[in-house]
Amino acid sequence: MIELIREAGEFLAGKVRRTPVEFSSGLSDLLGVPVWLKLEALQLTGSFKIRGALFAVSKLTEAIITCSAGNHGKAVAYAARGATICVPRSVDKSKFDAMVAMGADVRVSEFDGYDETQDWALEVAAREKKYFLSPFDDDAVMAANGGTVAMEVLEDAPDARTFILPVGGGGLAAGFATWAKHFLKDSTIIGCQHVMSPALRMSLDAGHAITRLPAVETLAGGVEGGIGARTFSVLQPLVDDVALVSEAEILDGVRWMVAHHQYLIEPTAAVTIAACITGKVRAGGPAVVVVSGRNVSAGTVKRILEEGV
Amino acid sequence: MIELIREAGEFLAGKVRRTPVEFSSGLSDLLGVPVWLKLEALQLTGSFKIRGALFAVSKLTEAIITCSAGNHGKAVAYAARGATICVPRSVDKSKFDAMVAMGADVRVSEFDGYDETQDWALEVAAREKKYFLSPFDDDAVMAANGGTVAMEVLEDAPDARTFILPVGGGGLAAGFATWAKHFLKDSTIIGCQHVMSPALRMSLDAGHAITRLPAVETLAGGVEGGIGARTFSVLQPLVDDVALVSEAEILDGVRWMVAHHQYLIEPTAAVTIAACITGKVRAGGPAVVVVSGRNVSAGTVKRILEEGV
Repeated sequence: MIELIREAGEFLAGKVRRTPVEFSSGLSDLLGVPVWLKLEALQLTGSFKIRGALFAVSKLTEAIITCSAGNHGKAVAYAARGATICVPRSVDKSKFDAMVAMGADVRVSEFDGYDETQDWALEVAAREKKYFLSPFDDDAVMAANGGTVAMEVLEDAPDARTFILPVGGGGLAAGFATWAKHFLKDSTIIGCQHVMSPALRMSLDAGHAITRLPAVETLAGGVEGGIGARTFSVLQPLVDDVALVSEAEILDGVRWMVAHHQYLIEPTAAVTIAACITGKVRAGGPAVVVVSGRNVSAGTVKRILEEGV
Repeated sequence: MIELIREAGEFLAGKVRRTPVEFSSGLSDLLGVPVWLKLEALQLTGSFKIRGALFAVSKLTEAIITCSAGNHGKAVAYAARGATICVPRSVDKSKFDAMVAMGADVRVSEFDGYDETQDWALEVAAREKKYFLSPFDDDAVMAANGGTVAMEVLEDAPDARTFILPVGGGGLAAGFATWAKHFLKDSTIIGCQHVMSPALRMSLDAGHAITRLPAVETLAGGVEGGIGARTFSVLQPLVDDVALVSEAEILDGVRWMVAHHQYLIEPTAAVTIAACITGKVRAGGPAVVVVSGRNVSAGTVKRILEEGV
């Protein structure tokens, strides 16, 4: 995987943004150590998913179908014009509109959850003889989505030893942890999840990947559903702790980012912020918090801000 | 000025962010030409003002006092620990809090407008024997705030010939226009202002700089007040057109950016977006729109989104 991450890093240079690593005085005060944000919310297409989409698509020649709560779909729409993208009916409007605008063949499932939507996408893939690109359970996706982010973080925040990551399907976390622990054996990896969809926590407890979970009503669709079998096998020996946050805490995280850094981020990306501001993560030394995306509709932002300011 | 801009560019390399130039399919559709956004809203300290503050401060040895509606003040607070910063009482809360957090000596005037606050700041400067650093009417500030932005824009969007800029005191526009017209004699510079504070428009009509205007109640404090005498002398022969937008149009611009690019920007920065979406600017060919900052308090964002989504 290390070689694949290096290859992804070289491939992506100049194609995606080198997103900033920004010092957070607010989180540093709260955690009692220097904390930086890796701002993948400022990435092209609005999330880190463009890294994996561009790299994985570059290795494929077949017609592509994928399944996504939104960000991976938006990234694939950008990377492979004309791709088929299956989305849950709960998809965020800004993500849906963006995929359509980029010319993707977007198909809305009759399910709210990711896992059922993926079942349906796999049926469509078989019927239409298209290649199903997993949004996380794929080595190229893991290497690019997580590994190349870690590569930049280790260069730009060389003192950091604690890494606080969002975990949905596990692609970002698996690739990130692989790179980080390879070069910093003493580092700590903390995965953050929705308390109602804690697939990594459950998988670690069970000793095997929980790849399916019932659909949960949440604005944080990117951290809803099971973990990948492949990503979990990578993550199991590398992850040190899991922090679980509620829907309300996630929305507090979105508001905190507006108030403290003046960036709009999506609820999925706020799981890591929420874990920090609720005191659910501890860092023994300098830490980096990955902020994964900004794709949220104006109507949703308005509702989130109304609830709390 | 060209040499000073080059010097500023070299000085700032690695100290500030090379902000992205992002294609806008929405504005391209509206203007009928390819349009890119120069996203200085993603700059360190939340606006382009950090460029001028770092460069100008590096040339000074005296104790510094300045006057600012917020962004320049935040930038100077970052660039020169312990600086004195005079702000109008209408200052945005997020900007005020940030300046205080960075250790600046922030003094709130009894005036709503920039011009009266600057008069008071000049009195304080004389009394306390401090060097008054103008937020715009200073060659180093103009070169760094505007010139280095233009340098990046010409490199990253080499086809663009129309440049749509916000104009308050005129520092960004003067530096930008100097660099752009030096290298692209056929380019077009369009300044955007608040219709209730159209200092550039009035100055062009009068043939001399209108350096003072009555205070206007606006959320776009950065484009309120008169234009600089020095910046106007630079701008007068270089600016091709002025677009004037209303408060309501500016707030539409903030909402448009959330809906179309998922970035939070401040009202001041939305003057250029507003000028585009209202059809008040025309571009004969590829265009770049400068988006200058994101420093807006959560309460203000909430109010802006409530009005329109």
